[in-house]
Amino acid sequence: MSKPTITAFDWVPPFAEGQVRDLRVRWALEEVGQPYDVLYLTQGRQKHPEHRQRQPFGQVPTYEDGDLVLFESGAIVLHIAEKHGKLLPADPGARARTIEWMFAALNSVEPPIMDHAIATLFEAGEPWSKPRLPAVEQRIHERFGELSRRLGDRQWLDGDEFTAGDLLMVAVLRILADDGFLDRYDNLAAYVARGTARPAFQRALADQMAGFTGSPPPEIQAWLDKQGEAA
Amino acid sequence: MSKPTITAFDWVPPFAEGQVRDLRVRWALEEVGQPYDVLYLTQGRQKHPEHRQRQPFGQVPTYEDGDLVLFESGAIVLHIAEKHGKLLPADPGARARTIEWMFAALNSVEPPIMDHAIATLFEAGEPWSKPRLPAVEQRIHERFGELSRRLGDRQWLDGDEFTAGDLLMVAVLRILADDGFLDRYDNLAAYVARGTARPAFQRALADQMAGFTGSPPPEIQAWLDKQGEAA
Ligand SMILES: N[C@@H](CCC(=O)N[C@@H](CS)C(=O)NCC(=O)O)C(=O)O
Ligand SMILES: N[C@@H](CCC(=O)N[C@@H](CS)C(=O)NCC(=O)O)C(=O)O
Repeated sequence: MSKPTITAFDWVPPFAEGQVRDLRVRWALEEVGQPYDVLYLTQGRQKHPEHRQRQPFGQVPTYEDGDLVLFESGAIVLHIAEKHGKLLPADPGARARTIEWMFAALNSVEPPIMDHAIATLFEAGEPWSKPRLPAVEQRIHERFGELSRRLGDRQWLDGDEFTAGDLLMVAVLRILADDGFLDRYDNLAAYVARGTARPAFQRALADQMAGFTGSPPPEIQAWLDKQGEAA
Repeated sequence: MSKPTITAFDWVPPFAEGQVRDLRVRWALEEVGQPYDVLYLTQGRQKHPEHRQRQPFGQVPTYEDGDLVLFESGAIVLHIAEKHGKLLPADPGARARTIEWMFAALNSVEPPIMDHAIATLFEAGEPWSKPRLPAVEQRIHERFGELSRRLGDRQWLDGDEFTAGDLLMVAVLRILADDGFLDRYDNLAAYVARGTARPAFQRALADQMAGFTGSPPPEIQAWLDKQGEAA
């Protein structure tokens, strides 16, 4: 099998370290035991035409393997799972439910979480940000409560087997782990702890962190300084 | 082949008519030529335990076929495409790129659009809503501009063949068609027009509209009255 190449950043702001979405792809590759290369982009490079050919929105991650060039972490994780016949149950019903949880992670659970990131990071300095936050938090708690009730005392979302659906759901839920959002959902907190305790996750995280060897471009340094003043 | 059953609403507020996400599933079923039954829910019914067994977040659509119960419009559309061997190219690379565009529609393009819906509908009466709108609109235009450049003069996202990726992307883009967002992207506007001109889409839309035979529960009527005052 050929060795795929993914893209990642050589520098991100501190709050994003360990959260950049190439982590999901690294995690999937570690779970299936597929070695890979990383092409590191300096900040800003993701918006250059050369990278936009891989990723029209100028983002990471991407995945290249021979002629195949893919973007979207969800699609890449599914491709890896299909290619290796892992993280995706063989039973047709269980397979369809795995894909269902992948979409649930990225289309039902992640959007309110990203809304929170926008409110507390990118719009942090705006006057409307604080008054709006309770509504944003409420939407997150609605989803987390629903997910917690569905998970119940299961180990993974569809039962005993860890799937690509769990991989994406854990990756999404842990975005807010440090903000205390999971504190009132014991089973979700334990679920995220189970997922992130997996050796494949730990290797993926360590590798992402080890890749941050670059430094911010001047305009980003200026933006960071502004964020610091606003906080 | 057995006949699947989907869920849909028998009433939604006027702004949501023709936009409820069962439309995506109906459209896929029409494209592949699969007849289906619809279980209509009155408003509020989606939050009852019986429906939450199908859909943990208390939403539509769901899809049931024999023992298989699925939620998430993206996962259902992919399941239908795989089952019928349509809307999903056989070539492995083209197949992976189709799934990439499905995730792009739901994880890169839909979130800023839903943010707009939240700002102009659900948070319309809040004092922060208007001042925040330009930032929301800017994020939408960033994505639309990028997508427009990628589409170029192609007919569909990956070339000449209409896929499940186009189905979801058109469904997402048309959410904002009436708000003039597509006006500055001729190729995107034409792309959406091409998608929605498909007979399968037209049948799906007509069938969703024909299903609105119910009326709002009293508390929703009160909310609508409040929206009317705020507008
Ligand atoms: N839906 C995309 C989102 C990718 C994304 O948000 N990437 C971020 C890093 S986590 C990025 O590259 N941001 C830099 C930028 O937008 O300039 C995916 O899941 O792959
Ligand atoms: N990610 C889900 C979203 C489903 C969704 O947002 N459904 C809306 C209708 S378009 C709904 O049921 N809303 C009613 C509610 O939340 O009570 C999917 O794509 O299936």
